[in-house]
Amino acid sequence: MTHTPDIMRPDRLLVEALREIGTATIASELRNLSIRNASITGPCAFTTGKVSAGPALTLQFMPMREDQFGAAEYDDPEKQLHRHVLYHAQKGDMVVVDARGDMDSGIFGEMMLTYFAGLGGEGVVIDGCIRDSAKARDLGLGLWVRGVTPNFHAQTNIFPFGVNVPIACANTFVMPGDIIVADDDGAVVVPVAMAEQVIEVGGRHSEWEEFTRLRLSQGGDLRKYYPLRADAEAEYLAWKTQRGS
Amino acid sequence: MTHTPDIMRPDRLLVEALREIGTATIASELRNLSIRNASITGPCAFTTGKVSAGPALTLQFMPMREDQFGAAEYDDPEKQLHRHVLYHAQKGDMVVVDARGDMDSGIFGEMMLTYFAGLGGEGVVIDGCIRDSAKARDLGLGLWVRGVTPNFHAQTNIFPFGVNVPIACANTFVMPGDIIVADDDGAVVVPVAMAEQVIEVGGRHSEWEEFTRLRLSQGGDLRKYYPLRADAEAEYLAWKTQRGS
Amino acid sequence: MTHTPDIMRPDRLLVEALREIGTATIASELRNLSIRNASITGPCAFTTGKVSAGPALTLQFMPMREDQFGAAEYDDPEKQLHRHVLYHAQKGDMVVVDARGDMDSGIFGEMMLTYFAGLGGEGVVIDGCIRDSAKARDLGLGLWVRGVTPNFHAQTNIFPFGVNVPIACANTFVMPGDIIVADDDGAVVVPVAMAEQVIEVGGRHSEWEEFTRLRLSQGGDLRKYYPLRADAEAEYLAWKTQRGS
Amino acid sequence: MTHTPDIMRPDRLLVEALREIGTATIASELRNLSIRNASITGPCAFTTGKVSAGPALTLQFMPMREDQFGAAEYDDPEKQLHRHVLYHAQKGDMVVVDARGDMDSGIFGEMMLTYFAGLGGEGVVIDGCIRDSAKARDLGLGLWVRGVTPNFHAQTNIFPFGVNVPIACANTFVMPGDIIVADDDGAVVVPVAMAEQVIEVGGRHSEWEEFTRLRLSQGGDLRKYYPLRADAEAEYLAWKTQRGS
Amino acid sequence: MTHTPDIMRPDRLLVEALREIGTATIASELRNLSIRNASITGPCAFTTGKVSAGPALTLQFMPMREDQFGAAEYDDPEKQLHRHVLYHAQKGDMVVVDARGDMDSGIFGEMMLTYFAGLGGEGVVIDGCIRDSAKARDLGLGLWVRGVTPNFHAQTNIFPFGVNVPIACANTFVMPGDIIVADDDGAVVVPVAMAEQVIEVGGRHSEWEEFTRLRLSQGGDLRKYYPLRADAEAEYLAWKTQRGS
Amino acid sequence: MTHTPDIMRPDRLLVEALREIGTATIASELRNLSIRNASITGPCAFTTGKVSAGPALTLQFMPMREDQFGAAEYDDPEKQLHRHVLYHAQKGDMVVVDARGDMDSGIFGEMMLTYFAGLGGEGVVIDGCIRDSAKARDLGLGLWVRGVTPNFHAQTNIFPFGVNVPIACANTFVMPGDIIVADDDGAVVVPVAMAEQVIEVGGRHSEWEEFTRLRLSQGGDLRKYYPLRADAEAEYLAWKTQRGS
Repeated sequence: MTHTPDIMRPDRLLVEALREIGTATIASELRNLSIRNASITGPCAFTTGKVSAGPALTLQFMPMREDQFGAAEYDDPEKQLHRHVLYHAQKGDMVVVDARGDMDSGIFGEMMLTYFAGLGGEGVVIDGCIRDSAKARDLGLGLWVRGVTPNFHAQTNIFPFGVNVPIACANTFVMPGDIIVADDDGAVVVPVAMAEQVIEVGGRHSEWEEFTRLRLSQGGDLRKYYPLRADAEAEYLAWKTQRGS
Repeated sequence: MTHTPDIMRPDRLLVEALREIGTATIASELRNLSIRNASITGPCAFTTGKVSAGPALTLQFMPMREDQFGAAEYDDPEKQLHRHVLYHAQKGDMVVVDARGDMDSGIFGEMMLTYFAGLGGEGVVIDGCIRDSAKARDLGLGLWVRGVTPNFHAQTNIFPFGVNVPIACANTFVMPGDIIVADDDGAVVVPVAMAEQVIEVGGRHSEWEEFTRLRLSQGGDLRKYYPLRADAEAEYLAWKTQRGS
Repeated sequence: MTHTPDIMRPDRLLVEALREIGTATIASELRNLSIRNASITGPCAFTTGKVSAGPALTLQFMPMREDQFGAAEYDDPEKQLHRHVLYHAQKGDMVVVDARGDMDSGIFGEMMLTYFAGLGGEGVVIDGCIRDSAKARDLGLGLWVRGVTPNFHAQTNIFPFGVNVPIACANTFVMPGDIIVADDDGAVVVPVAMAEQVIEVGGRHSEWEEFTRLRLSQGGDLRKYYPLRADAEAEYLAWKTQRGS
Repeated sequence: MTHTPDIMRPDRLLVEALREIGTATIASELRNLSIRNASITGPCAFTTGKVSAGPALTLQFMPMREDQFGAAEYDDPEKQLHRHVLYHAQKGDMVVVDARGDMDSGIFGEMMLTYFAGLGGEGVVIDGCIRDSAKARDLGLGLWVRGVTPNFHAQTNIFPFGVNVPIACANTFVMPGDIIVADDDGAVVVPVAMAEQVIEVGGRHSEWEEFTRLRLSQGGDLRKYYPLRADAEAEYLAWKTQRGS
Repeated sequence: MTHTPDIMRPDRLLVEALREIGTATIASELRNLSIRNASITGPCAFTTGKVSAGPALTLQFMPMREDQFGAAEYDDPEKQLHRHVLYHAQKGDMVVVDARGDMDSGIFGEMMLTYFAGLGGEGVVIDGCIRDSAKARDLGLGLWVRGVTPNFHAQTNIFPFGVNVPIACANTFVMPGDIIVADDDGAVVVPVAMAEQVIEVGGRHSEWEEFTRLRLSQGGDLRKYYPLRADAEAEYLAWKTQRGS
Repeated sequence: MTHTPDIMRPDRLLVEALREIGTATIASELRNLSIRNASITGPCAFTTGKVSAGPALTLQFMPMREDQFGAAEYDDPEKQLHRHVLYHAQKGDMVVVDARGDMDSGIFGEMMLTYFAGLGGEGVVIDGCIRDSAKARDLGLGLWVRGVTPNFHAQTNIFPFGVNVPIACANTFVMPGDIIVADDDGAVVVPVAMAEQVIEVGGRHSEWEEFTRLRLSQGGDLRKYYPLRADAEAEYLAWKTQRGS
């Protein structure tokens, strides 16, 4: 019987705090904390407008080798590891797949994704493709992929090999249990041990940002309003008082 | 005078049956029938939501060579082969173009595509680009392309060379008259001689699929419901009876 | 103090005339005038449906070198050259950026683009990415980019180096002040000295085009109606008379 | 029985004259005669120091499709088209192969190349690979390839489809019978109809070139000696007289 | 203390038999045994003329992540996993590295390779680069690499992560202990369980091959001599008798 | 008349000291000094065995635009900027060219390189190609290029635009006057201001390295001899005494 490990899930409060901060700020703050590039470059938002956040279940594909992945394995669905990663899914989880950038393999189709959505899954990030894409879009999941294809997961060049092991997703390293936050700008990986630091710095309320946005949209001087210069503080305070916030 | 051959068109019933089956199932079934990868990888759905199916008219581009394609040929539109492939168009036809993946050539523009739509054309698959894309989207055709460009078909690196000859479209071999089915997941090529087999196997009604989809969306166990396990059959039959179908 | 040059702006009438002509016709006409490929291939329409036209402010990025772009420079925003290109912005201007095709750098984010929109900017063409893309889409600007990312402009491999200097944007040469026209087909560059010629030729009213479009959509013969053949002129004139135009 | 066409061979004097002129001058002169880029970019000299020239026998590969190229065909070697192109070989011929840039297919191995050499073949240009490369190097043929591989010609992604048909070899168009000249700088294609013009212009003896080379190697001024400036003619004539040539 | 597993080594007789057979025949025979593509495409022979064969020690690199691979680890060389794979080396071993195709990392330099050679190592296959390449060439090892670089193993984008684990080397799957055979055509991977079958089929002495090679080099007919046709057998036997072999 | 600036040349002692240290050590030491990647990845050693070092004269190419680079300019060689960079050449100089990775342009041919060699030039690094490569190899210059081609410098996609300006050579930033060191591992760029630091650290004589190399080649333990461990010092000293060095 196939056995695959589960992951350690971080405190959900951390996940939600990171979701609030957003990918752009997370990417910048991790840079300040020495993580040069936490963004997963390649998979793009397929479900525009969605924001997903959660711990990473991971799935690793390997280049196809026929003595390792025989046709016979289809007779026993339990041997297909891309099913097993979903068996571990809990509400709020993200699935992150190293599909080796392959454009000829549809890692998950409608049924697999329906199952994941049924378990309360948050979203899926694949360095590769999904199939049944028209239906997949409407399942309520967040989806970040390189593309779509009619092919199934092991039709051509790759096969599923590892579940909840460390993976490389599109040249970004992901540990099982790392916190993934994804929105229209893409997906970022937050090492659990750094989550609190990111939240602390990234979450500091930039209370003048709304004021700045307004002034810039009115043709205000970038030098004066962004970041807020000393000689604009009085104006800002007056605006703040006036709107009673 | 330029003469180009027409194609042999398969029975329309085959085409419509394949359209019903859909690209994902066709790709899988062709795999079982030894065609490893029938999907045309590269051209993507430009007219999201459209499903097109029909026999392939083919157009082959070659790398530009100025002694073969002189400026003078513009004086005589009849020498432009990308026009000739459209002359053969009948209701329900697909046009498949090997444009060598070129991103600097707009194979067809608004006028050509309007003409093709006027003849009842189904859709166009190009390993390359179209131009006048904003207007092209609204002609009722299905369009699968790599991208768009303001350039015309022979502006830079390629020129049209063959009509209704065997072509490579984005690393997939296409014979004139092959049946093309395309949807949001992409386009697949069905050799005419294999169409009946694909239809027979792919069309077997998976009558429990709707039940499975429902159970999975409710958090049901993938192992039990997909594929439907023996111990779930009673539940399925009860559900089926209850809904009176 | 950082000083960067402004640009020479062409007569606004030229800009508006080119906008009317559109990218596809401009590309063809420039080809006839010896400019083989005026299209910027790579950056695609992010704000579908938008048409932008204006003189080019240019921004050049270079491969990151840490002795040239130190962390310390963040302490003084004025040293960041991607801000300076925006300081020059006037109503109707386009910003064109050589970001070296980098997918890990978000050249502009919400605040910078809000500022540019506040000044009346027309649009932005980047051989690279933006960040805060969900908000950027709604600022009223036209945006042509390769992609999006959560990363900031100098997070990884590149840094801003030159403002209003000649640049290569995705293998197309752009002089500061060149006229950029961009729509759903992409962006084209018009050398100012050639603008009048393009307008003269490209603007000749193809008055039979509407008639041709109608006939083709009705299944009319491409050979007869496009271009309009001698034996179709009578039909065209009759149609024209009938509709009283 | 498989039948494939032979080619028309140009006058051997043309071939030998072009060989003398060399690829660099041919490329330039064809540019002046409107052929923008006659060079086959991709295949590189594998047999350094060799210069080959001759008319092109052509071989076209297509993306693998299993219903077109079955395993059964190996039972009958005569169905393998990469053999047939060699059946046409005559002394002085070049073989040019569109192998689609594939790095996993060894188009020819030792036996095929030995046969070609035995017939007096000049050389082979492949937009792909050979196998048995260590032995192939010593057969006396000129070889221009992208690389080497242990795989055979149809092991993975492609299969031979056409013999002595027009092909694209690495983005360069080649007609059967075109004259190929190849040396350490690569291979160029000369349309037969333009061969005389190229020879006439390219062959004009630059009799001062040897003098120029000498002066430049001695630190002479590029502006004075290349091209030979009027004020250097006397010096040149003196040098010429002195050496008695 | 870092602990990494050793590998199971196959019978050396299998290794030597495979070395005799050579990569081209191995690749073909594995294809017949269902392994579609056993060749490692990318790394090329750096030590031309060398043939290496042995069981695979494997080393896996991952995309750099600074919280996993800190500068501090340089203080303790024992934490560097690219050293550990060499600690396992025995006479006749091959080292195979998944370096993710990175061209900015020199996986091994002179000292590491000298150590490996000192232990009797056979060769190294890297989907990436070495450094100190001029000296590395002369150590007596067989080297197959993508290129060379002055950079060290973890200077930029990757870091060593796993030793003697299953890896992907340039899109080919390699198990620790698989038999690697490499020559000028490249490297192939033989699953240990299939080694005997390959040897049995691939090793059948093609005793007429030498005769065939001779006849082809003399201009003999490919159809008659390769493979040896019935009507050439008498000639072959006469030749064989005459030379007394 | 075309005027282009000369460069500031660093003290020749710095150049020679860096040459002694070699590219591998320079790359590592610059990494320690915060320059993450000083290596020019892409251009490879064409003149194997050569080591070149000197200050960088720079040449920048731009994408071809016909209104900027007309055929007419060939009438006046002085307008060709790739000549001008050579006019500045002094003994010991390196020429570094941003040729945009173009494989269809031969930046320099035999005559230009002969002139440069005649002036005492050290070497040339091009993110692109040379032509007349067979003759170029023998001029005594060090050459690092991406490839070779029969085409001339402005035959297809690029034209020379700037001399002795800051450039990007294959994703590495180069200032005119930076010190370039190149050998079989490739080329590295040393900012002049950092040269002394690199020399100081990189030049510290590792006097035990010869001993270590010997022991490793004899099968000695990597852990003991590299770096030299405390318990190996006595052995080292004994060896040193014995050989009398």
